Amino acid sequence: MQTAKRFFSLEGIDGSGKSTQIDMLISALEAEGFSVVRLREPGGAKISERIRELLLDPAFKGIMSDDTELLLYNAARAQVIKEIIRPALEAGKVVIADRFAWSTYAYQGYGRNLGAKKVQSLTEITCDGCFPELTVVLDLTVEASRARTAKRGAAPDRLEQEKADFFERVRQGYLAAAREFPDCVSAIDANRTPEEVFADLYTLVKARL
Amino acid sequence: MQTAKRFFSLEGIDGSGKSTQIDMLISALEAEGFSVVRLREPGGAKISERIRELLLDPAFKGIMSDDTELLLYNAARAQVIKEIIRPALEAGKVVIADRFAWSTYAYQGYGRNLGAKKVQSLTEITCDGCFPELTVVLDLTVEASRARTAKRGAAPDRLEQEKADFFERVRQGYLAAAREFPDCVSAIDANRTPEEVFADLYTLVKARL
Repeated sequence: MQTAKRFFSLEGIDGSGKSTQIDMLISALEAEGFSVVRLREPGGAKISERIRELLLDPAFKGIMSDDTELLLYNAARAQVIKEIIRPALEAGKVVIADRFAWSTYAYQGYGRNLGAKKVQSLTEITCDGCFPELTVVLDLTVEASRARTAKRGAAPDRLEQEKADFFERVRQGYLAAAREFPDCVSAIDANRTPEEVFADLYTLVKARL
Repeated sequence: MQTAKRFFSLEGIDGSGKSTQIDMLISALEAEGFSVVRLREPGGAKISERIRELLLDPAFKGIMSDDTELLLYNAARAQVIKEIIRPALEAGKVVIADRFAWSTYAYQGYGRNLGAKKVQSLTEITCDGCFPELTVVLDLTVEASRARTAKRGAAPDRLEQEKADFFERVRQGYLAAAREFPDCVSAIDANRTPEEVFADLYTLVKARL
């Protein structure tokens, strides 16, 4: 996998603490003088926002084919790469993405059983070398995820309605990525205090900068 | 390339006579008792229609990345395959498509210089064996195409605004497909009367049925 320097992503099922950890990471890096771009797809790319509307439209639940979904996620990502990620990296900035291509690997490849190989082939076409040099997976059991997200009380969207066995497959997809691509994916235990998790995250990121 | 029996497509730059030839072909096949489904993407698949709206939106001209465009065409196609083509073929019908995956090969792979290999890799993921057993390219020079389409007087859409050298690359893409995939692509001279062109088309299709 060809990767891009200074490009990082955090992954994990809902409730794993990605937002909190990214807040802490950006504060720490900015305090050291790094210029950091925080990214959560579609990240302001208008075309990608329009594509996401299609992906999350409840009217298409049960109608959209799995391959269509997979291709749409990749189309939205290709636009974000062109408009946002490449220009930021070329300007010397650090990019930290709240989810990126490993989400597709875990959710579509494993969660929807589309197969890791197909997802990887598509990712290579879409990213064309603009792939995070390090992705940190915040690993959490599905039970712990459910307990954390239930407290938020937000209305579930299409993906959140899926069953627990789906999320178990997603979790296993993330762990498989960490096993199979150790050079660019590391999993850490997210079932700890934010400070404990951050200590591991920070060590991993700093080793690359 | 894994192909599907009774699935045919016609290709060619605008003005090459695809609509007329498909009319004639369907009349002839129906007269022989075949049940025929005529398809022009998005073909009534609602998700694919929404994707096409994005692709043809003039607001995105110059903004949409070439890879995004390529992935969106494939996403729209994956949905048409699931909703329309596979069910029709499974019901024993003949499917005749007015443009299909070779359009992407010619327009994106050659016209936009995205490369034939990348387009082919995506096509294999998207079609997953649901690929026309025979595609007939109605070959026409760019000058002849311009002369024919100028008579129609319709407002040009985003793709039609592109320059003549783009269409010359598209034409060469179609001819390359016929040379490199002779088992499933045949090019015939479209700069003749409709009856002359149809005689060739009909012979080619009948040889497969």
